[in-house]
Amino acid sequence: MPASPIRKLVPFAEEAKSKGRKVYHLNIGQPDIRTPEVALNAIRNLEDKVIEYSHSAGIESYRRKMAARYREININVDHTEILVTTGGSEAISFALMATVNPGEEVICPEPFYANYNGFSTAAGVKVVPITSTIDSGFALPDIAEFEKVITPKTRGIIICNPNNPTGYLYSEKEMRRLGEIVKKHDLYLYSDEVYREFCYDGKKHFSAMYLEGLEEHVIMMDSVSKRYSMCGARIGALVTKNRAVLDTALKFAQARLSPPSFGQIAGEAALDTPASYFKEVYEEYIERRDFMVKALNKMPGVKCPSPGGAFYTVVHLPVDDTDTFAEWILREFEYENQTVMMAPASGFYSTPGLGKQEVRIAYVLKKEDLAKAMETLGAALKVYPGRIK
Amino acid sequence: MPASPIRKLVPFAEEAKSKGRKVYHLNIGQPDIRTPEVALNAIRNLEDKVIEYSHSAGIESYRRKMAARYREININVDHTEILVTTGGSEAISFALMATVNPGEEVICPEPFYANYNGFSTAAGVKVVPITSTIDSGFALPDIAEFEKVITPKTRGIIICNPNNPTGYLYSEKEMRRLGEIVKKHDLYLYSDEVYREFCYDGKKHFSAMYLEGLEEHVIMMDSVSKRYSMCGARIGALVTKNRAVLDTALKFAQARLSPPSFGQIAGEAALDTPASYFKEVYEEYIERRDFMVKALNKMPGVKCPSPGGAFYTVVHLPVDDTDTFAEWILREFEYENQTVMMAPASGFYSTPGLGKQEVRIAYVLKKEDLAKAMETLGAALKVYPGRIK
Repeated sequence: MPASPIRKLVPFAEEAKSKGRKVYHLNIGQPDIRTPEVALNAIRNLEDKVIEYSHSAGIESYRRKMAARYREININVDHTEILVTTGGSEAISFALMATVNPGEEVICPEPFYANYNGFSTAAGVKVVPITSTIDSGFALPDIAEFEKVITPKTRGIIICNPNNPTGYLYSEKEMRRLGEIVKKHDLYLYSDEVYREFCYDGKKHFSAMYLEGLEEHVIMMDSVSKRYSMCGARIGALVTKNRAVLDTALKFAQARLSPPSFGQIAGEAALDTPASYFKEVYEEYIERRDFMVKALNKMPGVKCPSPGGAFYTVVHLPVDDTDTFAEWILREFEYENQTVMMAPASGFYSTPGLGKQEVRIAYVLKKEDLAKAMETLGAALKVYPGRIK
Repeated sequence: MPASPIRKLVPFAEEAKSKGRKVYHLNIGQPDIRTPEVALNAIRNLEDKVIEYSHSAGIESYRRKMAARYREININVDHTEILVTTGGSEAISFALMATVNPGEEVICPEPFYANYNGFSTAAGVKVVPITSTIDSGFALPDIAEFEKVITPKTRGIIICNPNNPTGYLYSEKEMRRLGEIVKKHDLYLYSDEVYREFCYDGKKHFSAMYLEGLEEHVIMMDSVSKRYSMCGARIGALVTKNRAVLDTALKFAQARLSPPSFGQIAGEAALDTPASYFKEVYEEYIERRDFMVKALNKMPGVKCPSPGGAFYTVVHLPVDDTDTFAEWILREFEYENQTVMMAPASGFYSTPGLGKQEVRIAYVLKKEDLAKAMETLGAALKVYPGRIK
């Protein structure tokens, strides 16, 4: 696997910090939001004397409670249709390994979550991109675009909804269009829905699990990481009505023995997080998003669509190459002894040359920090030698 | 992946329990030993407000402390030569994925830990067995046996020391012989040392990391699971002096983001487990082993070598087929309303037809339970219809 553009920047961020500079991390999806108390308390009140393996598919009481929560949002599954995984990451790996043979392909609208490439490489699978563009706000590409790249080797389509890195939320209409392609060509639909709760402007999330008649096609990937701000728990889930996929995925799950027990205990408790927690988080993100989108669009030459979900946005910058710019801002620039780290969007495209004028920004910092980061970015764009008018 | 013989037995064990029968689990390596208090307390006293991703290679303070502990036992590594993994399982996966291409081969003395096959299959790698036998107490096969199966596709040799499933502890002499083969044919030596602390009869563990001049060849896999009886924490480690392997493994580690944070916190604290804990555990296992080996060898037609390490043994039983016997004892037999679950050894051999008269027994139960289990097994062997004189 090649090093991603963002990983190349890590030593430069360290270097800036070693010079005493404050670095605002707009590059990562690590929210600063507190983990729900109810989850932390479950860990603090742990009474177990032996930390044993759990069932390879996850603790049964956890899966039962998770299924009940899914049913509340009309995802009609029972606990046998859920496999608890080590983070959403493992859910993606298991989904691919259980359904795609080495040398086969999956289609993914780009820009896409860079690690889809990593998991695919590990499974010997090729990710075939179709491009969504900033001009359409990163909406789902036309059906015709999918059909152009479908071959006998195509096994499925991966989506992330709401999207990382674009923040785009697929509409019910787009989801139904996807469902039609999937049915027509007998594909799997891998639906990464880990940002499900982060939908803004009154828009509603339409799960792939809602698509009627596609029970054998849809594999949903989920995670506690973002929902409860507990990325380090490493707990996710693979959810599907397809028994053959569940059976095969379970064999991979048995090989790795069990998902983490501590994380499952926290995850099960987190299902009782009060509605007030989500309301606060939601309001916090809306405020951050609105502030950031406005600040970005005020900068000359910058273009930022208003994302309908998640906590990322892909922004157009008036620069020659964001790989170079992101390095320059860390190494050569400072504004009141501050700088910012951003993810060059080239790492989210698999078509060579795309994303050269885009960065992904995560609005996971508190507003005061976001404000300083935006001020710094604005000042940098004014003096960057590779600026394009 | 085919279902392993042991997994096929799970529903029969459930069935026996549903009839009110007590089932003694001799089939799994889940110790009943308590997790050290110092590890559990670290979790109970958790002060973190946000459970964040850790560094993809693991929390630095944990790696530093782990390196210091390794140096105490003359494994000379620093924290940059350690990658914290999600259980020993992930260490094995990363080691294989970082060094072996799909279609290539690794050699493993059989019987071997069944999941090596699972991880290899996932990585597209073929495990080539060479057979060790109960008559030699499962000692390392002759060098000639290795050389017979080394081809241009061979990338390395996997060992588990002390061994799961046999309990065999490789001597320094055997390790040096292995080192010679590895050097001569420029192979990797993957050394699974998760049972390092469980060595009996005054025998000392000789780590693959001790082999001089093989720094670029040896990849050690480790885990907290058995050492601290915290299998559910899912924390392991990949340890090597080979920088290229570390760099590649780190890319796989970055794709899955980070190992579990809670488990790492417990793992770091567990490094302060007092010597008295290990002494107690050691004495407990010695007592169990001696009791069990004696009880087994007393049964007519049964042969059980005395294992030098770990907490498993592979036992010869006077039966037609242990797959059938292990199913029969769960489904058709009871002794004072008790029965036992054992792992048919066929699942630990990859040469077809081997292990048909052997089972793996884990002595992870307390002595009273082991005594009842032995009594039950003895009674079963007397009446089993497929008994061979």
